[in-house]
Amino acid sequence: MFFQTIDILGTIAFAISGVLVAMNKRMDPFGVLIIAFVTAVGGGTLRDVMVGVEPVSWMRNMTYVYVIVASTIFAVVFRNQLKHLRRSLFLFDTIGIGLYTVIGIETGLVANLHPVICVFLGTMTACFGGVIRDILCNDIPVIFRKEIYATACILGGFTYFLLLHFLEGRNYLFIIAGLVVIIVRILAVRFKISLPSLYKNEDD
Amino acid sequence: MFFQTIDILGTIAFAISGVLVAMNKRMDPFGVLIIAFVTAVGGGTLRDVMVGVEPVSWMRNMTYVYVIVASTIFAVVFRNQLKHLRRSLFLFDTIGIGLYTVIGIETGLVANLHPVICVFLGTMTACFGGVIRDILCNDIPVIFRKEIYATACILGGFTYFLLLHFLEGRNYLFIIAGLVVIIVRILAVRFKISLPSLYKNEDD
Amino acid sequence: MFFQTIDILGTIAFAISGVLVAMNKRMDPFGVLIIAFVTAVGGGTLRDVMVGVEPVSWMRNMTYVYVIVASTIFAVVFRNQLKHLRRSLFLFDTIGIGLYTVIGIETGLVANLHPVICVFLGTMTACFGGVIRDILCNDIPVIFRKEIYATACILGGFTYFLLLHFLEGRNYLFIIAGLVVIIVRILAVRFKISLPSLYKNEDD
Repeated sequence: MFFQTIDILGTIAFAISGVLVAMNKRMDPFGVLIIAFVTAVGGGTLRDVMVGVEPVSWMRNMTYVYVIVASTIFAVVFRNQLKHLRRSLFLFDTIGIGLYTVIGIETGLVANLHPVICVFLGTMTACFGGVIRDILCNDIPVIFRKEIYATACILGGFTYFLLLHFLEGRNYLFIIAGLVVIIVRILAVRFKISLPSLYKNEDD
Repeated sequence: MFFQTIDILGTIAFAISGVLVAMNKRMDPFGVLIIAFVTAVGGGTLRDVMVGVEPVSWMRNMTYVYVIVASTIFAVVFRNQLKHLRRSLFLFDTIGIGLYTVIGIETGLVANLHPVICVFLGTMTACFGGVIRDILCNDIPVIFRKEIYATACILGGFTYFLLLHFLEGRNYLFIIAGLVVIIVRILAVRFKISLPSLYKNEDD
Repeated sequence: MFFQTIDILGTIAFAISGVLVAMNKRMDPFGVLIIAFVTAVGGGTLRDVMVGVEPVSWMRNMTYVYVIVASTIFAVVFRNQLKHLRRSLFLFDTIGIGLYTVIGIETGLVANLHPVICVFLGTMTACFGGVIRDILCNDIPVIFRKEIYATACILGGFTYFLLLHFLEGRNYLFIIAGLVVIIVRILAVRFKISLPSLYKNEDD
């Protein structure tokens, strides 16, 4: 129940972030809905397809569909008021990537994959919805350029495996790793920490 | 036999639409062929991969490969005469999306998925070849911005499920739902109906 | 052992080509690493997913992960010296596509697919990592426009099937088809051969 509520908050935040990008590209309602969907379920879809979990998860649980459609309608109707929700949306989004990271890791564990691959799957689950959103909107994916976002997921993922041998219950692992993602992300945004760009100096 | 002929007409229209876009981007013959392929089979490939039908359908039936290669050669050779075929191509394309929508729905039904997911799969089968085409050509997908295209597929898809409890034979369902897609699309183009863009007013 | 060494050389060359493109787009270290990964394993991932080999190959063999991470770090640290390695990188890359083409063909054979589909899978394995790299970097894929690259893979692929009935050992087939890819590519670059663009003349 607790995890499901978090999952839904994350889905809402992801869907609304898709709606905002799509509206700024002057898409029609169908395009806006598709971008909302892709942002919310794209990372998990890639993960499931690469691991071989098919039909992919969100197709077997209508909750996602209803939440995404409702979030899209809400975001379109109240599009001029959304700026007042900016802080809540950031919080939902951050909680969402924490949760998605751990879900992705556990999908990898179930398939008996190496811990590094599991961390990769967790990061992909959390981040690649946004990557596909940006590609469909013809932008260079924002997470490749500006933000501590994937880095937070990677750190949370390694925390999960560092603690795997010390902690008994999976629930604790789940919560601690998720919290690491969330705290790293919040600190990075608060103190404006970002990775430096690796621009190649052509003149040397 | 009847359905197969329609399937081939749709594939021809999709492949030629890919060739036209690729030539305008000054691609070389290999690029043109790939874009023709992707436009014709991309939607079905995504559907099969997400549902878990693998190897994907077109890889198990060489008809698609032959039709696409022949259409590409034809379109390249007669590239300056294609404008005289514009009406036929529009008709083939429209018939194609009607058929692809219903094929996608039935793939979902075979996998026991929820009707809404089936409508999604039908729409994806019909529309996402064009989406991948536009991404590979570095454009924002045209169906997200301008046309009643996906909307026609969605309406046809819901018609399928509305009638599911009233009609006996699947063949009738197939034909009626396909016709709804085709008629909505033709009416929308004829009367220049399109969805409004949801541009977000930043100034409010 | 011999094939594995070639495989690693190809992976190194592909990863470094990803790093170079990503750094020119001013991506941050995470973005650079992802682009290196995608360039190196993207083609094989698409192939595995479309054929149904899941979890995809590179997730079950940590060698790829280690090689890609090491290549990325190397390329970033020595980014201003890489131009001295241009010839070696071109050679690695060319050997890599020769090998990847044959690996893709054999994946198709194992799945009992038609020879034309196998050639397609080989070409996709060799070329589509670069295609995904260019899409993520918001460019029109370079292989659709300028280079004899995919064409070399296609020629090598057909050589494989032409010789299939005349040669006994698979190892010979493997090596000869790979060499055809490599030689065609080297000759094309040396003599600046490229396919003409099929620009559609709108004025006629």
